[in-house]
Amino acid sequence: METGQIRLNKVTGEWVIYAPSRRKRPQDFQQAKPDNYWDSHSQDNCPFCQKNNQESEEIILEIDNIQNSHWQTRVVANKFPALNLDESPRRNIEGIYMTMPGYGHHEVVIESPDHQETIATLSIPEIETIIETYRQRYLKLMDNKQIMMVIIFRNHGKAAGASLRHPHSQIIATSIVPSHRRLQEVEAQRYFDHWAQCVYCDILKFELNEKVRVILENDLFVAFVPFAAEFPCEIWIMPKHHQADFGSITSEEKTAFATILKETLSRLYYKLNNPDYNYVINTAARYKAEEPQLHWYCQIRPRLTTSAGFELGAGMSINPSIPEVDAAFLRE
Amino acid sequence: METGQIRLNKVTGEWVIYAPSRRKRPQDFQQAKPDNYWDSHSQDNCPFCQKNNQESEEIILEIDNIQNSHWQTRVVANKFPALNLDESPRRNIEGIYMTMPGYGHHEVVIESPDHQETIATLSIPEIETIIETYRQRYLKLMDNKQIMMVIIFRNHGKAAGASLRHPHSQIIATSIVPSHRRLQEVEAQRYFDHWAQCVYCDILKFELNEKVRVILENDLFVAFVPFAAEFPCEIWIMPKHHQADFGSITSEEKTAFATILKETLSRLYYKLNNPDYNYVINTAARYKAEEPQLHWYCQIRPRLTTSAGFELGAGMSINPSIPEVDAAFLRE
Repeated sequence: METGQIRLNKVTGEWVIYAPSRRKRPQDFQQAKPDNYWDSHSQDNCPFCQKNNQESEEIILEIDNIQNSHWQTRVVANKFPALNLDESPRRNIEGIYMTMPGYGHHEVVIESPDHQETIATLSIPEIETIIETYRQRYLKLMDNKQIMMVIIFRNHGKAAGASLRHPHSQIIATSIVPSHRRLQEVEAQRYFDHWAQCVYCDILKFELNEKVRVILENDLFVAFVPFAAEFPCEIWIMPKHHQADFGSITSEEKTAFATILKETLSRLYYKLNNPDYNYVINTAARYKAEEPQLHWYCQIRPRLTTSAGFELGAGMSINPSIPEVDAAFLRE
Repeated sequence: METGQIRLNKVTGEWVIYAPSRRKRPQDFQQAKPDNYWDSHSQDNCPFCQKNNQESEEIILEIDNIQNSHWQTRVVANKFPALNLDESPRRNIEGIYMTMPGYGHHEVVIESPDHQETIATLSIPEIETIIETYRQRYLKLMDNKQIMMVIIFRNHGKAAGASLRHPHSQIIATSIVPSHRRLQEVEAQRYFDHWAQCVYCDILKFELNEKVRVILENDLFVAFVPFAAEFPCEIWIMPKHHQADFGSITSEEKTAFATILKETLSRLYYKLNNPDYNYVINTAARYKAEEPQLHWYCQIRPRLTTSAGFELGAGMSINPSIPEVDAAFLRE
């Protein structure tokens, strides 16, 4: 395959994305980057620092900081995109297998001109600008009817898969919906058909009443450790009002989300000594946003443990930490 | 929760195991073990070395090496078990959630008295003894009708989640079958209902004919990179004859599996400089072994890349490596 490709796993029903622009020879996979890679990656050779990226990267979107007439967020194409909108989303048969070209989009949200910052240390208006950037790009990408799903995510630290220190998130848009996601939709649909309620709304009501897994809340959002958290200190931030589609976040909700996101990530930052983490905004796939049974949420996964052979084989996690204990620790 | 517990994730339908005997306070999760931890873990304080473990561990099974009248494999209880057969597999309702006690079993297979060995460096008769140990324990654990699934897996190196260098595998038996596994069964059932064939047998036939993803084969087994491999240099070793149940492996098949497992892991060992990896034996859950649509296989995942936020959110992988390129590299 010369260009990107997406292949269907015939025995699990899951799609796998191949990223030829990231291709290495197998022997080039170096297991251990030097341990000081992350820290030594200085501003001088950072592609996201202002003086370096102005000419080399095409800027897709730029939003100014209202306080100092200077750009605050910039969206640029991923230099090693996993997917490309120049491809076709047409499915093909190769022998007994199904494939499709690497159709989709992959971009980077540079969150601040300042190389040293991270969300825990940015101001609330700055984080609001990041969320506004997510919102605009989400809506723009969903305008393309071939796109079925937009994934907004952040990798912080090398254990979380980040290769650059400069604060940034990524957005991937695909024309496929993974079976993993469909399974979650089926569970929510079944719950709705039984109870005539959104399962996420019922979880929120229960958690806000029990309080034991809640970390913090404001008028519009709650941050809590889910009852069946897969990872130590896993956190979900969820809008209190039913909202399936991240793209319909209001201005007031943006401020509230920025506030709780900063406060939640600050607690990780200060209480767990700036751990590596991923977060992802789980929002409804196309055609599902109008249905009453889904609810968007931001899932935060600190990388405090390593998944092993059992997780690979069973597709099931062993969590050495207790959600109520984690929540109490983060709440204090 | 004072004892172990298993909780059902209400929005994904997946079970999560909590392991209180491994419990730490959240602040105790140390992200980075010193980089020399693995290498410095010497025989002097290794709990699996013969002089240390004779008294401290209860030996569940011991198989002698036929060549030197000495034990070769020993099965001992996991010192920090995730699950326990003293619990009850009874489901409970806690508020809006489903839970069950941490019923199940968790044990360690010490693969050799020699601290420095690994499967790539052991002899074929020694590896046959390891497989015979797996087989005996698998059959014994499945005798218990409350056990629905037995997962045999190996974590090699700290990036693969291993905390001890001494060569060992682990076996976990559960009374639950994860929804991840059920999804795979549904795909195989649908394929069988369409084609009246085992999907795995059809994949084998196709791959043996195409050859491009095959690494090596013998009379009874084939090792290949799957068409939709999720990870660089992912390898599946599969019996050529239809066999859903690992427990029905014959004496002849044990020898052939030991031979191909050693050769495959040796290629990783020498060509990729002893990379960390997991392997798992994926075999049919209870009640599924007699059905014609499933097939056991050993899945090997070298830990050459880090999963990140996209994988967390989409439940879908981005693989920077091409299966045919990986297979050619490992075949040479």
